[in-house]
Amino acid sequence: MATIERTRSAERIERDIETLAGRDYTLSDEAIRRYAYKQVYRNTLDYFTRALRELGFEVYEDAVGTLVAQNRPRGEPVFGIGSHCDSNRNGGKYDGTMGVVTALEVCRLNEELGLGLPLQLISFLEEEGSGFGQMLLGSRIMAQRVTEEELKESFRAIDDGRSFWEHARDAGYQPERWRECIHVLDDLTGWIEMHIEQARVLEDTGNRIGIVTAIAGYIHADVIVHGRADHAGATPMDFRLDPGPAVADCILELERLARAAGGSTVGTVGEIEVHPSLINAIPERIRFSLDIRGVDEDAFRGVARDIAAYAEEAAGRRGLTVEYRQRQTLPATHLDERIVAALESAAAETGERYLLMPSGAAHDTMCVADHIPCAMVFVPCRDGISHSPYEDADPADAALAAEIILNAIHQLAGRAP
Amino acid sequence: MATIERTRSAERIERDIETLAGRDYTLSDEAIRRYAYKQVYRNTLDYFTRALRELGFEVYEDAVGTLVAQNRPRGEPVFGIGSHCDSNRNGGKYDGTMGVVTALEVCRLNEELGLGLPLQLISFLEEEGSGFGQMLLGSRIMAQRVTEEELKESFRAIDDGRSFWEHARDAGYQPERWRECIHVLDDLTGWIEMHIEQARVLEDTGNRIGIVTAIAGYIHADVIVHGRADHAGATPMDFRLDPGPAVADCILELERLARAAGGSTVGTVGEIEVHPSLINAIPERIRFSLDIRGVDEDAFRGVARDIAAYAEEAAGRRGLTVEYRQRQTLPATHLDERIVAALESAAAETGERYLLMPSGAAHDTMCVADHIPCAMVFVPCRDGISHSPYEDADPADAALAAEIILNAIHQLAGRAP
Repeated sequence: MATIERTRSAERIERDIETLAGRDYTLSDEAIRRYAYKQVYRNTLDYFTRALRELGFEVYEDAVGTLVAQNRPRGEPVFGIGSHCDSNRNGGKYDGTMGVVTALEVCRLNEELGLGLPLQLISFLEEEGSGFGQMLLGSRIMAQRVTEEELKESFRAIDDGRSFWEHARDAGYQPERWRECIHVLDDLTGWIEMHIEQARVLEDTGNRIGIVTAIAGYIHADVIVHGRADHAGATPMDFRLDPGPAVADCILELERLARAAGGSTVGTVGEIEVHPSLINAIPERIRFSLDIRGVDEDAFRGVARDIAAYAEEAAGRRGLTVEYRQRQTLPATHLDERIVAALESAAAETGERYLLMPSGAAHDTMCVADHIPCAMVFVPCRDGISHSPYEDADPADAALAAEIILNAIHQLAGRAP
Repeated sequence: MATIERTRSAERIERDIETLAGRDYTLSDEAIRRYAYKQVYRNTLDYFTRALRELGFEVYEDAVGTLVAQNRPRGEPVFGIGSHCDSNRNGGKYDGTMGVVTALEVCRLNEELGLGLPLQLISFLEEEGSGFGQMLLGSRIMAQRVTEEELKESFRAIDDGRSFWEHARDAGYQPERWRECIHVLDDLTGWIEMHIEQARVLEDTGNRIGIVTAIAGYIHADVIVHGRADHAGATPMDFRLDPGPAVADCILELERLARAAGGSTVGTVGEIEVHPSLINAIPERIRFSLDIRGVDEDAFRGVARDIAAYAEEAAGRRGLTVEYRQRQTLPATHLDERIVAALESAAAETGERYLLMPSGAAHDTMCVADHIPCAMVFVPCRDGISHSPYEDADPADAALAAEIILNAIHQLAGRAP
């Protein structure tokens, strides 16, 4: 195992992150707001390009603007590392960007330590959906999980309503060649993404490193319970068709079902929308959202099926009707056992506490894993806060992750001692 | 008992209502939108003024614009009838206005039938709060249930933020003399208000007339349950401080408590506001409103006390905290037994089905009842729909109400056969 000067790595990682939180790199003074085809995004790609070229990497952008850098000629096998450098609209400094910065640090260490590992860094665009409302957009394009019609028509900029296609073209890319993006993956023998955890499991369990074994699949859906709007004062309890108690039943049942499913399965009601929303009116209808996830495909899909059936029954019992509308779904992603094992042995060598864990959040790695053996490394973020300017993470943890990733790749390349 | 030509009365009531739904009397093409100090409101007062003067009534407006008409010189005892002629911002033709129109019809019948009953018609302003966000404002001013500071400072127009005081003055009134408004009640020996029911009890029980025995008091409050915003995917069930299930517990408990309280006690959650309201975020906090009413003062206040305590406990059990904030409260109003009895005997004479019932909704009569013996008469509105352009009621029911009110006043005046 290579040993690194973690303090120096942490300083470099911190310097990169703080630089990229500066005014040239965010549209907002109060948060990180950075997304595809804006000048601040261009500046961010330029920052990484300069740093990688200094290390002797060949750097290019693919047909839609994904940044790719490699230290071997194309066609030679390389190991992939990276993440995304766009942010949530009201985002923090660490989500995504810390992963790309840590990948850059791995490239630096590889050079400094003379390890000569064949590496390819990728920085995906539009993971957060801030530009076009589409999460994981860059990696979905690469994995061909989109259609040309979506890129040309459906996916439109939040800011001006113009299509992704037009914006990509205006930024100097060639969206008509989007199908070629998949060739970025052609030379990869594996892929490791580092990311902040975005929850508090590592912090609460006192671990500095999470090695991700699987990424949860999810179902996003809406349930609408239809009742009857009546005067809140003038309508006796027995004359009501109030959707409220049926919605309450569903919220409690979802919690019960998710707990009963066990493992990593979770269920959340994040949105409740009451119509007409007047203190003195019984609601006519209430919509609530479902976010149900897990790495056990049968378990989380079972929860979704059961809560839909339960809502039907709970509403029916009260003379109400229900609509269930699925918004989106993605299957769970199981990560590569060999890479996970390499990360685990590299982590064990450091003497620091680490945890094998699932990822409840979605990541670009889900798309890469369609084609390439993958794994992920998490570092803690303070209080689990993410998608917020209050997001905070420790560069020292990122430096530790860089060491672990470097050594895992080293080991996988068969050069470990 | 006087018998009336109900068909003709219904036609006149219908004509008045349809006229007042015309373009000179509403700010909106799609709903009735009429509130104090707008030209459409002025036109409405003028309409009633003309009609009442034709009947020989003396008509004036008090210091803030309440319309008052009487067929006796001031100082002589009169019986009060009326309602309000402002509307909800997205209102219908019947709420309030049908009560004033029916009172006008009682005046007409009194004249035509030569009954010579001493009458005073009042049309209150701002019952709906459309102008200044203050329900029952006109009758509260008359009953001195406001402060000068509120009229000058706190009560501000929804449209332009200027004070009630300024608006009243601009409209030609003398708000500085608001304390004199109470003298409108000086000559009253009693008061009957007719109103649409705004619920479906009459319709569902097949009654054409409701004789109101009491008006529910109410408590309006907000409960805010504070949890912790976390990533919906990345936060295991056991690591959450989700306010959702605690709110669900409260919604179900409120329903249970209101049913257990029995009688006319009702409890409603009409507003639920989730922060931040994202499908993939566990809510940081959820606010829900409470509307708790009843004619049994102890019963409905007990429900409010119990749900506040329950919320505290339900939240505490889950590691959450709770704020309870009362917005407003009004005691229950018990109506005058003698007037209720007179209405009941007049109703029985008609041979039509009627029901003694509480009013869950608040009405101007609550303020009048501070000073004068009062009662109310309800007529059905289709499907209980109110505060909506789809509001619908039958002028034939209003004509029946006019007959009953006329005969009740006749009887109370000691002139009944």
